[in-house]
Amino acid sequence: MMERKEQMDRELIYIKPDEIETKSFKIIDEELAMRGIVLPLEASDKAHDGCRIRRAPVIKRVIHTTADFDYADNLLFSDDALIRAEKLLMSGCVIVTDTNMAYAGINKKALDKLGAECICYMADEDVAREAAVRGVTRATVSMERTIELDRPVIYAVGNAPTALVSIYENRLKLRPGLVIGVPVGFVNVVAAKELIISSDIPYIVARGRKGGSNVAAAIVNALMYQLTDR
Amino acid sequence: MMERKEQMDRELIYIKPDEIETKSFKIIDEELAMRGIVLPLEASDKAHDGCRIRRAPVIKRVIHTTADFDYADNLLFSDDALIRAEKLLMSGCVIVTDTNMAYAGINKKALDKLGAECICYMADEDVAREAAVRGVTRATVSMERTIELDRPVIYAVGNAPTALVSIYENRLKLRPGLVIGVPVGFVNVVAAKELIISSDIPYIVARGRKGGSNVAAAIVNALMYQLTDR
Repeated sequence: MMERKEQMDRELIYIKPDEIETKSFKIIDEELAMRGIVLPLEASDKAHDGCRIRRAPVIKRVIHTTADFDYADNLLFSDDALIRAEKLLMSGCVIVTDTNMAYAGINKKALDKLGAECICYMADEDVAREAAVRGVTRATVSMERTIELDRPVIYAVGNAPTALVSIYENRLKLRPGLVIGVPVGFVNVVAAKELIISSDIPYIVARGRKGGSNVAAAIVNALMYQLTDR
Repeated sequence: MMERKEQMDRELIYIKPDEIETKSFKIIDEELAMRGIVLPLEASDKAHDGCRIRRAPVIKRVIHTTADFDYADNLLFSDDALIRAEKLLMSGCVIVTDTNMAYAGINKKALDKLGAECICYMADEDVAREAAVRGVTRATVSMERTIELDRPVIYAVGNAPTALVSIYENRLKLRPGLVIGVPVGFVNVVAAKELIISSDIPYIVARGRKGGSNVAAAIVNALMYQLTDR
């Protein structure tokens, strides 16, 4: 079966633009089944009753974005993550990213439908200046800057482990609504994610080194699409 | 050694912001060595003599961006790819992306230093309109639109296999300078990449399903950094 699939992959097939995504998710479902992976359809706690957001569509969208089935194992959700995500998105929260790439990847039409907003401070001149003076990363300063926001915040971190450390250290002031912690890389990435997992902050984290701005955006979109029926 | 590294990974270390990337690349070098992978330092053909761009820094930056060592095997370069990249970037080419994410990830300071430019047509209203009328993807229309450009083009495709098909079908009119073909996904992605590999278009391609807008941007940046000394 795997061979037939790869053979098919080498031949271009005609498919309508609006059917590509549906077919992609069908293939992902088939391959998850072939690999014997059963994704959780619901959170493990009772608090999830009535929540319209499920884990499986989030995990599948990340696999769709990366073609990497590792995320079927890597993605961890705190018990309260999805119910928090629904509450935050339905009450017009702010989504703060740590890269302009993640910002660019978040679906603006879905944001509009929900009355939510996306912000990224990383390209601000004064963020760069303050970071240079203090000898910290721009991501650290960017996260601190969210103290000024007067709305609840979902942090979508796809690049900088220092962003996660900054959120953790300032958690009493920031009161993070939800942290999507999926930075990628080799220095402090694993440890920064474990810091979030060990805290009482609601989280969706890609355990290990993998992640990225594309993964952060995919998770935000997957959460939103379950509420907007896209 | 792997155990010690994993232990270290779980502890946050203090590191200056400007040293994070250097340390990351050092870890990548160490792990490539542990895995017995030797990256090519130069292209295999004589045409490469005098070219300032090498393959290894491109491959390593993609691994840095994804934490995925699969790219040590997946990334294929046509023999003329790097010498073409150098000529194009040094003569102020246009880089055309198939997503706003890839556009956002390409380093604008490096572009400025080289007098190069980056364009993405994907969010244009009239591209969406034409695509809907014709029943094709916006990526198809976006690539066709580059016929209007009066400068040589590097195509950086991180998302849509239809973009690669469009470039291939219009290659005599478009005369693509270089195609960075790294779309990700499950439908027509493998076949579209093989189409480029089998053509006489200069290419850098991530063979198989993997890739992404982040990978496309990382490749463009890795090419530019070797010319700008960042």
